Amino acid sequence: MVHATDDSIGGRRLRVGMVGGGRDAFIGAVHRLAIRLDDRIQLVAGALSSDPERARLSAADIGIAADRAYSSYQQMARAEAARADGIEAVVIVTPNHLHTPLSATLAQAEELAAVAAKSGLVFAVTFNNTGYAMVREARSLIASGALGKIRIIRADYIQDWLTLPIDADGQKQAEWRTDPERAGRSACLADIGVHAFNLARFVTDMVPNEVAADLTTFVPGRRLDDNAHVMMRYAGGARGVLVASQVSPGNYNRLSLKVYGEKAGLEWFAHEPEVLRFSPFGEPTRILTRGGPGVGAAAASVSRMPAEHPEGYVEGFANLYRDAAALIVARRAGRTPDPALVAAVPSIHDGLAGMRFIEAAVDSHENGGTWTTLAA
Amino acid sequence: MVHATDDSIGGRRLRVGMVGGGRDAFIGAVHRLAIRLDDRIQLVAGALSSDPERARLSAADIGIAADRAYSSYQQMARAEAARADGIEAVVIVTPNHLHTPLSATLAQAEELAAVAAKSGLVFAVTFNNTGYAMVREARSLIASGALGKIRIIRADYIQDWLTLPIDADGQKQAEWRTDPERAGRSACLADIGVHAFNLARFVTDMVPNEVAADLTTFVPGRRLDDNAHVMMRYAGGARGVLVASQVSPGNYNRLSLKVYGEKAGLEWFAHEPEVLRFSPFGEPTRILTRGGPGVGAAAASVSRMPAEHPEGYVEGFANLYRDAAALIVARRAGRTPDPALVAAVPSIHDGLAGMRFIEAAVDSHENGGTWTTLAA
Amino acid sequence: MVHATDDSIGGRRLRVGMVGGGRDAFIGAVHRLAIRLDDRIQLVAGALSSDPERARLSAADIGIAADRAYSSYQQMARAEAARADGIEAVVIVTPNHLHTPLSATLAQAEELAAVAAKSGLVFAVTFNNTGYAMVREARSLIASGALGKIRIIRADYIQDWLTLPIDADGQKQAEWRTDPERAGRSACLADIGVHAFNLARFVTDMVPNEVAADLTTFVPGRRLDDNAHVMMRYAGGARGVLVASQVSPGNYNRLSLKVYGEKAGLEWFAHEPEVLRFSPFGEPTRILTRGGPGVGAAAASVSRMPAEHPEGYVEGFANLYRDAAALIVARRAGRTPDPALVAAVPSIHDGLAGMRFIEAAVDSHENGGTWTTLAA
Amino acid sequence: MVHATDDSIGGRRLRVGMVGGGRDAFIGAVHRLAIRLDDRIQLVAGALSSDPERARLSAADIGIAADRAYSSYQQMARAEAARADGIEAVVIVTPNHLHTPLSATLAQAEELAAVAAKSGLVFAVTFNNTGYAMVREARSLIASGALGKIRIIRADYIQDWLTLPIDADGQKQAEWRTDPERAGRSACLADIGVHAFNLARFVTDMVPNEVAADLTTFVPGRRLDDNAHVMMRYAGGARGVLVASQVSPGNYNRLSLKVYGEKAGLEWFAHEPEVLRFSPFGEPTRILTRGGPGVGAAAASVSRMPAEHPEGYVEGFANLYRDAAALIVARRAGRTPDPALVAAVPSIHDGLAGMRFIEAAVDSHENGGTWTTLAA
Repeated sequence: MVHATDDSIGGRRLRVGMVGGGRDAFIGAVHRLAIRLDDRIQLVAGALSSDPERARLSAADIGIAADRAYSSYQQMARAEAARADGIEAVVIVTPNHLHTPLSATLAQAEELAAVAAKSGLVFAVTFNNTGYAMVREARSLIASGALGKIRIIRADYIQDWLTLPIDADGQKQAEWRTDPERAGRSACLADIGVHAFNLARFVTDMVPNEVAADLTTFVPGRRLDDNAHVMMRYAGGARGVLVASQVSPGNYNRLSLKVYGEKAGLEWFAHEPEVLRFSPFGEPTRILTRGGPGVGAAAASVSRMPAEHPEGYVEGFANLYRDAAALIVARRAGRTPDPALVAAVPSIHDGLAGMRFIEAAVDSHENGGTWTTLAA
Repeated sequence: MVHATDDSIGGRRLRVGMVGGGRDAFIGAVHRLAIRLDDRIQLVAGALSSDPERARLSAADIGIAADRAYSSYQQMARAEAARADGIEAVVIVTPNHLHTPLSATLAQAEELAAVAAKSGLVFAVTFNNTGYAMVREARSLIASGALGKIRIIRADYIQDWLTLPIDADGQKQAEWRTDPERAGRSACLADIGVHAFNLARFVTDMVPNEVAADLTTFVPGRRLDDNAHVMMRYAGGARGVLVASQVSPGNYNRLSLKVYGEKAGLEWFAHEPEVLRFSPFGEPTRILTRGGPGVGAAAASVSRMPAEHPEGYVEGFANLYRDAAALIVARRAGRTPDPALVAAVPSIHDGLAGMRFIEAAVDSHENGGTWTTLAA
Repeated sequence: MVHATDDSIGGRRLRVGMVGGGRDAFIGAVHRLAIRLDDRIQLVAGALSSDPERARLSAADIGIAADRAYSSYQQMARAEAARADGIEAVVIVTPNHLHTPLSATLAQAEELAAVAAKSGLVFAVTFNNTGYAMVREARSLIASGALGKIRIIRADYIQDWLTLPIDADGQKQAEWRTDPERAGRSACLADIGVHAFNLARFVTDMVPNEVAADLTTFVPGRRLDDNAHVMMRYAGGARGVLVASQVSPGNYNRLSLKVYGEKAGLEWFAHEPEVLRFSPFGEPTRILTRGGPGVGAAAASVSRMPAEHPEGYVEGFANLYRDAAALIVARRAGRTPDPALVAAVPSIHDGLAGMRFIEAAVDSHENGGTWTTLAA
Repeated sequence: MVHATDDSIGGRRLRVGMVGGGRDAFIGAVHRLAIRLDDRIQLVAGALSSDPERARLSAADIGIAADRAYSSYQQMARAEAARADGIEAVVIVTPNHLHTPLSATLAQAEELAAVAAKSGLVFAVTFNNTGYAMVREARSLIASGALGKIRIIRADYIQDWLTLPIDADGQKQAEWRTDPERAGRSACLADIGVHAFNLARFVTDMVPNEVAADLTTFVPGRRLDDNAHVMMRYAGGARGVLVASQVSPGNYNRLSLKVYGEKAGLEWFAHEPEVLRFSPFGEPTRILTRGGPGVGAAAASVSRMPAEHPEGYVEGFANLYRDAAALIVARRAGRTPDPALVAAVPSIHDGLAGMRFIEAAVDSHENGGTWTTLAA
């Protein structure tokens, strides 16, 4: 059922500013949809484009006051800090090369982590798939011991939009993702593989300690990987396979996770996000659905609709915003936040884990597929 | 792709007031989620409950100013009409018996239609399933002649939440739906069957001219139907079957539509709203997906996310609000709205058609299943 | 698991002769595949065609000795009766109009039933869908009370092969099925609707006592129904809907059954015959699979393969033959057969029930859809 | 449609003897079902068990004459060679360690290949999944160039029956499969992984030239791998991943193949064998079904049933037998067989390729996952 407090704000909304996300940007608009859904966050300022005119027009498009439309994040930071009603958080939706999942290099990411730690502020990474209700349920089931000790983790993120050389043809989204100067050492693995990696991490609370990888660039002229195969080994003996591809026709955007333990298996597919297949060994597979029977509090607490009134991508995204906002409010109020809430919001440490995974995978690939330990 | 103008308001937002939807109400919160998604409508006033204290608290919950929290729609109408910045539209989310799909009786509905016609105002009915992108695509495919002349229409709306006598046990949602005093002559058919009926109408642009029905009350003590089987005949020779059930275990909320014509068939399931199965006779079935290849402007124009970034119930609902708002803006500006836009918004005439369907089905049932003509 | 006795014949095989099923016939070859699968039955004689030369050649094709290739069933009956090693049973695979499901008219069928009763012989009707393992499981679950009292029965048999006027164009299979002289009063309902009817009967052990029907002929020039909608009422209050169609593009051969009771629901689809969806109210849906966990003896006793080594149409058919052969052997040996075995083999009474259903449906249709009682 | 010649034998049936497959054996009975389906092969002799009494009883069970029930293949070979009506082919269904996929070691397999080559006889390996109609269609589509150059090959064979230590508990099937003395260097990869490997080979006509593997034994006390992850590289640049597991709860027997090329993708799942998903890049995915529209001769030539009358495991198996028998008949008659027929029957070379794959994977695993070239 929809929660009585869904749109209760219990006081004023959190004020945020956005960096990036001007006209024609893709993901910025998605963030704004997610922000608006629950009405707990108010987008009041923006450095939406580095081009001043574009920044101004983009801000006007979305109802940001002209005097809070900036053309650089530095300018926004200074001006907003000077206001009594200034922004309390920043949403960064620039292209990957300006952030992915945190930064272009691991060294930069580690520096960023140090700064974040010193600041004591909340740093959330929008690994948005962790917001799906049935992903929360999967995490909860595993934490409860329903699968027993985990043995096998399989994560796939498969797309087809780079099947043809559209990057060479100037498609903007494709172009920056496959440019080593901007994307770093990997394209496919860094763009989508890391989401599969983080999904597996979130659900199992496990990160591999070594990987063996095979990255490929299938499209002639492309400068970074468009397909990645990675084998993973975990402390404790679990094993995994992660596949990321952007050249697999018939798969527009297919993310899936399969986890098998000593006692049961779980399978989830992002294109059917409302369903979780749960198979206790020796019993029939059960179709768990958000809002349906046998599904616990983990899913219910992030549901807005009753069962089979499908929720989708925007709700998952909004859950992340809601949780991050709650974390910020708690910190601001000097309260120690609920550990479950802290765990629900992917942090800079999770971003770092993703970076280390990419680094190790690229290293492994360059060393002939040898098992390569993730940096600590 | 997300439309550049998704959250462009091009000026100020439409101001609306809500009737019903206070604390604990279910559908009011869903409407508000949908309203917020695109930021084109602003909820500024409300008569959220007939209890003044509850009305006040409910308004505070959702950020409505205290002086615009009313305890009756009459009061809201008077006060808002006196303001320069008063509401421009009213959202009614009271229980079915206060409106469903328009009113308790057909006579009342017809009176309402007359009033609406005389007023010249926009009257939209939230038959929300018409807002799904792939439902729009289905309608467009049929309009384009891709199915040829329609022969068979099958619509199902199946639930299981009334399997046990929860109405007798005081569950509020169940209780008013099955009370003849409040729900009228039908419960299941009026509550969900009419949504299946309207979905079929929207997609095919066809309404049956006669029906033969069998309504059943399975749960002892229940006072209205909890299951309905209806055969339908259309002018021009098409035939249909509509099934509505609230006592079918395993189906939380399953709505589907199948349409077969001389040249092709279409199948759509609301719990997989992003997919439309299209089967030209003599060719393999094609899996059409929102945002995917081979899908036209009808779906694209109401999409916010790329393919396989699942959209769901709230987006469909929001599409209805966006279209209705566009209609209101056009009327207010004295512009003749695009006929496609007019057709996209279920009107009081569609509500009336639903009422006539229910009336004819109940009449047929009471007359031993004889074919009964729908009122003109 | 495969049963140790799968191909144990424990003595000699049952000797049978076939009527119909010569070159170019469709269903005769399917029967022979099914007969051979278990090696318990031996096809030793045949009246495969009324054309002597064709009968001779058809027999040679399939290894029937030349002296046992007859050109009429009367000739076969006489000659085989005179042999010490003559046939012990006859397999009739002539077109529907020579048998469907038993005969062209109900009167003939009743006469046949009287003859069969008097003879004391086994008369099995190949309502072959009852042979699927998961259909057996469904029957067993319902018999065990797992669904509680049955409320709703929905059976669909949907095809598309008669979408175009191929009967008028001389397609042989289409032609006799739609010829009133040969097919009787119904085509679609008699050809496939009756299979859906019998599937529902087999699984639930329930037959409606009245029906209201709407039969349609969509294709111009066709002389019998190609689409049928039937509402059903059962003693005890259950309700049903049966839909049969041969003009629904995208559905080559789709048979399904859904049964909902006070305590649980069941759904089965013949194109995924290995799966049975079982939904106890208030619990998650369970995916029961042949050979998988939680599936009982009813399915296991007719399985040849382990789970997920898919069985299909031929195994279902073969199960019917195996059970019928066991029944014949038991009768021949003077043993009272196991009642479960008797129930597993559709008899002439089940064939008669199907005929009565068709008769009542056509009568209802001709009387404007009024509820019409099935003959006792 | 069923082929007119399905059970035409055009003369006498091929006479075969079976080695292994006595009482309680699993796969022997499956072979016999497949052999019987088409009636082109006659099982007339057997060395069904090394225990003489068991061999005799097992032969009687299945109708083999007592004087042709042997207790060793050597004895069968001698005795049958001396008969005018002796067997013309031998079916070997002994446990894996006596043959898998050809022998316990690669050296033995190569010796066997040399013997086979010298003999000039037909040597078929029952990689039975190649017999499925839609697998044949997949192969044909790729051969036709419909996918363009192949880039990615993904094959999974996932089971769960070894989740618990049933081998240690004495389960016979589990026990010999995990015994290094009998199974060789690998259990899971050799038992099922090699089927996935061969399926990929058959459909694409491609074999990797190097692999990097990670084999795991999850169940304590087990002596060989129960899970295998393998990355593959092909000449020409294609890449692949193969996963085999026998400890993945919820997967009784799940085999799948996904192939992506420059122009299109294909996906096939053995538990839904009648369906092939075909996705030309930039067009909607098409659901190809055996017997349905748009499916070519490759599938039709091995179909026995019309579309959506499901075929399954036994038909695939029978197709292999039919093709192998046709090959034997052609060779015996001195005819050069159709190359397409030769290609359709997995040969000792395909068995060798599977052995080389296993060897290379185990070597890679033992060498820390380094890329390891398959033996030529």
